[in-house]
Amino acid sequence: MPEPLAAPADEQHGGDVAAEKQKVQDAVAKVAADLGARAQKAGGEAQQVLEAAVMMAQDPMLADDVTARIDGGKTGERAVHEAFASFQEQLVALGGYMAERATDLADVAQRIIAALRGVPAPGVPESDTPFILVARDLAPADTALLDLEKVLGLVTSDGGPTSHTAILARSKSIPAIVGVTGALELADGTSIVLDAAAGAVVVDPSAEQVADAEQRIADRVAQAAAPITDGALADGTKVPLLANVGSAKDGPAAVELGAEGVGLFRTEFLFLDASEAPSVETQTAQYTALLEFFPGKKVVVRALDAGADKPLSFLNDAHEENPALGLRGLRALRASEQILHDQLTALKNAQDATEADLWVMAPMVADAEETAWFVEYGKKLGLNTVGVMAEVPSLAVVADQVLESADFVSIGTNDLTQYTLAADRMLGSVASYQDPWHPAVLRLVKSLGDAGAAAGKGVGICGEAAADPQLAVVLVGLGATTLSMTPAALADVRAELAGVTLEQAKAKAAAALAAHSADGAREAARTA
Amino acid sequence: MPEPLAAPADEQHGGDVAAEKQKVQDAVAKVAADLGARAQKAGGEAQQVLEAAVMMAQDPMLADDVTARIDGGKTGERAVHEAFASFQEQLVALGGYMAERATDLADVAQRIIAALRGVPAPGVPESDTPFILVARDLAPADTALLDLEKVLGLVTSDGGPTSHTAILARSKSIPAIVGVTGALELADGTSIVLDAAAGAVVVDPSAEQVADAEQRIADRVAQAAAPITDGALADGTKVPLLANVGSAKDGPAAVELGAEGVGLFRTEFLFLDASEAPSVETQTAQYTALLEFFPGKKVVVRALDAGADKPLSFLNDAHEENPALGLRGLRALRASEQILHDQLTALKNAQDATEADLWVMAPMVADAEETAWFVEYGKKLGLNTVGVMAEVPSLAVVADQVLESADFVSIGTNDLTQYTLAADRMLGSVASYQDPWHPAVLRLVKSLGDAGAAAGKGVGICGEAAADPQLAVVLVGLGATTLSMTPAALADVRAELAGVTLEQAKAKAAAALAAHSADGAREAARTA
Repeated sequence: MPEPLAAPADEQHGGDVAAEKQKVQDAVAKVAADLGARAQKAGGEAQQVLEAAVMMAQDPMLADDVTARIDGGKTGERAVHEAFASFQEQLVALGGYMAERATDLADVAQRIIAALRGVPAPGVPESDTPFILVARDLAPADTALLDLEKVLGLVTSDGGPTSHTAILARSKSIPAIVGVTGALELADGTSIVLDAAAGAVVVDPSAEQVADAEQRIADRVAQAAAPITDGALADGTKVPLLANVGSAKDGPAAVELGAEGVGLFRTEFLFLDASEAPSVETQTAQYTALLEFFPGKKVVVRALDAGADKPLSFLNDAHEENPALGLRGLRALRASEQILHDQLTALKNAQDATEADLWVMAPMVADAEETAWFVEYGKKLGLNTVGVMAEVPSLAVVADQVLESADFVSIGTNDLTQYTLAADRMLGSVASYQDPWHPAVLRLVKSLGDAGAAAGKGVGICGEAAADPQLAVVLVGLGATTLSMTPAALADVRAELAGVTLEQAKAKAAAALAAHSADGAREAARTA
Repeated sequence: MPEPLAAPADEQHGGDVAAEKQKVQDAVAKVAADLGARAQKAGGEAQQVLEAAVMMAQDPMLADDVTARIDGGKTGERAVHEAFASFQEQLVALGGYMAERATDLADVAQRIIAALRGVPAPGVPESDTPFILVARDLAPADTALLDLEKVLGLVTSDGGPTSHTAILARSKSIPAIVGVTGALELADGTSIVLDAAAGAVVVDPSAEQVADAEQRIADRVAQAAAPITDGALADGTKVPLLANVGSAKDGPAAVELGAEGVGLFRTEFLFLDASEAPSVETQTAQYTALLEFFPGKKVVVRALDAGADKPLSFLNDAHEENPALGLRGLRALRASEQILHDQLTALKNAQDATEADLWVMAPMVADAEETAWFVEYGKKLGLNTVGVMAEVPSLAVVADQVLESADFVSIGTNDLTQYTLAADRMLGSVASYQDPWHPAVLRLVKSLGDAGAAAGKGVGICGEAAADPQLAVVLVGLGATTLSMTPAALADVRAELAGVTLEQAKAKAAAALAAHSADGAREAARTA
């Protein structure tokens, strides 16, 4: 497991400022070239990550800061260490996504310091036999080049669900669990079973546990090869299985894996790299491109969810102390109404231009009043079906009032869990609270399910909980009418649903509701 | 309304580094002396605030940074501007309480720059007639020296409930509303009614509105003069009225105002200025001192609630991105169990040494499992009565499970509202969500009230909601059995409760629950 280099001592250099600057400049050039080469080799999403690292290494503001510190008498190593650490702090201050980029910056600093010292940068150990890699966290440069033949899985003690380790492991389909307390205490060569679905690491497994794990791997392979059918329970109850997608180009892959539509189309990608909101025309083209993949099928589009870990310069204030509790989602859109107006107008255009069944929903909606406001706003612009995300606990608590005006609700289990348990879902020290099996979360889902049934309206799930096959069954038992997930999870969930009746699903849900903890709910549902 | 000085241009100084440094040094000395003199004049809490400002002005780290920037060619003004801005950013990064100190730092920088320019520092305008002061935010140096005869009230556009403006206004009993959108658009000389209890500013009030405000001022004066009785409804139903206090020395004042006990004793003060947790002996003495003021009466002590806006170096990690959703309250105590063990041991000692009826509760408890853990832990150490705070939405959702083991619950309406609505209660841009009248919050209170009634256990309120007389009635209607508040609010709440029967309170509660918004609930309760 790669350990960081020792920090350079706070020493004064000999006095040759120019020589010290040249050394740093050479080291930066070397690191940038190395990262650039790795980027080429990696391709895809990993390439982008590494190219971002190259830009960090060559950042002129950082270079100025390093130079100023050398002018102030620091050694090159120390100047690099201090300047990068200072910039890292600023990133951390921005929170969320930016803060997790701080790890990438630290890696770049390590590489430059290693180059100055003429030693190799800390990296992934070499091994001849396949292994599970256990580390504090992985630098993007390492993760991107992991030898897929050798690395069977990843376990890290640090990092949240949006750390690069997690993102890249997902994009390469390497089983990974991040933020595991005690991970670093595992000795090299220890035998472990890594159950990423359950988030569990079994140390020194028994022969039985190993056999069980191997059986489950075989089952998964078989499930993935099974013919694709529409989602349904054993008694024939339909449970449409939809896909969460982030851009129009993800459409074909979702269809191929059997998605019956899109349950969550995130529109952030259109806005994230822009200095201002994209035009109605640009948005219309993008939404139309997606909707064209799904003629006659449902496509649920979420209005821009900026703020928290996805701040936008033209929409959000970066200086919130608790951005997860800040001006995000619908709150931010109401404060910048033109952006909302343009987006919904573009969606209306795409709705008219295609055969897809477009549903539009707002993120971070608090209550019936906000729901009624958004539904009226969308309908006035000509949208056919308008609903809201259920993420804020208050919305679930007043679900009956919300469904008076909403055409549907879609439950974002990640944020709903985070807020209900009041525990940051990106923070390792409270990661144990981020469990959608918690009875309080399940009760709020039931409140929404009951309200949906009473109003005869749909209640979907679009958080990660829907991708957990056992939990998917419980959610249906609580009243979820559709499940949306990352397309890779569709096969597992489809297979699990096909094995239970609605009555059985309700029994499992009732058992889970009565439990006193998330683990208790998981166990109660299993044995019910 | 004081406006900030223009930022110094990013200019190079003429070249005389020593002269530039000397000018800054002189300006710092002048400002420190001025603030020191103001501190002496102010006395009390304001004195501490101003003395902290003197220390900021003379901070050696800041002085080094300024010097380095002058060495780098910046003018003195610009160097002060940049160095203070950089430190301010670091404070903001720390979040919560520290971030709000950033305003104080900005004021010090303004004063030094003003001194360098030889102009007066921005300050509070002079007026011969009493007035309501409207400002962006007030520097502590200004607030502390406000002429009480002249300033009838304060309205600011910035600042949260823990800003110095708010803290000092409370300590001086000046009605104040902070974070008012559009406050700066009020022209000088505009006539307004400031209703701090309702958080409302009425611009250009009618003669009727002015008369109404004057009547309410007269009513308040009359209520404050009424004889003190125990809290009770018109039908004789007892509703013990308790005090929220922050240290033992607040005990006598609370008793004098008719507190029937203490509903919330915050223990943070013992820890806040310490580099490590105080000893069992120190804590025993403090708890004993408080309990001695309340022989035969209930005193509810909250275990250390550190984290979020009250981080402690020996307990919390300052680098959380969303500290309000971080490792705080019971979570932090379980991670540093010795601190909890020592505190509960000291409380047990105080319980045995006095005649008070000691109840102990844990903050930030998420569910039945954590409740059972804390109750068992406290009882093993010999505490008689052990319960939990209801602040995290999940705890309210599973209230029935929680009251299986808890002896009582006490609802912290501030945090419960913040988390239920997922809106930072310190953040101006989402301040409208911080309203405990919201029907979702009221429903969670009812869930707790029902569970308490079913279990035959007490359900108290210790958040600011209990100090709102109309809301206090609704809370009792929802099942609250005791109300705890800042002692200054006892008279108003006592008078309001005496005017309604339990049946009427329940009718008002039912009306509020059915509303679709906080304002709707307020109005529904008023007319029910």
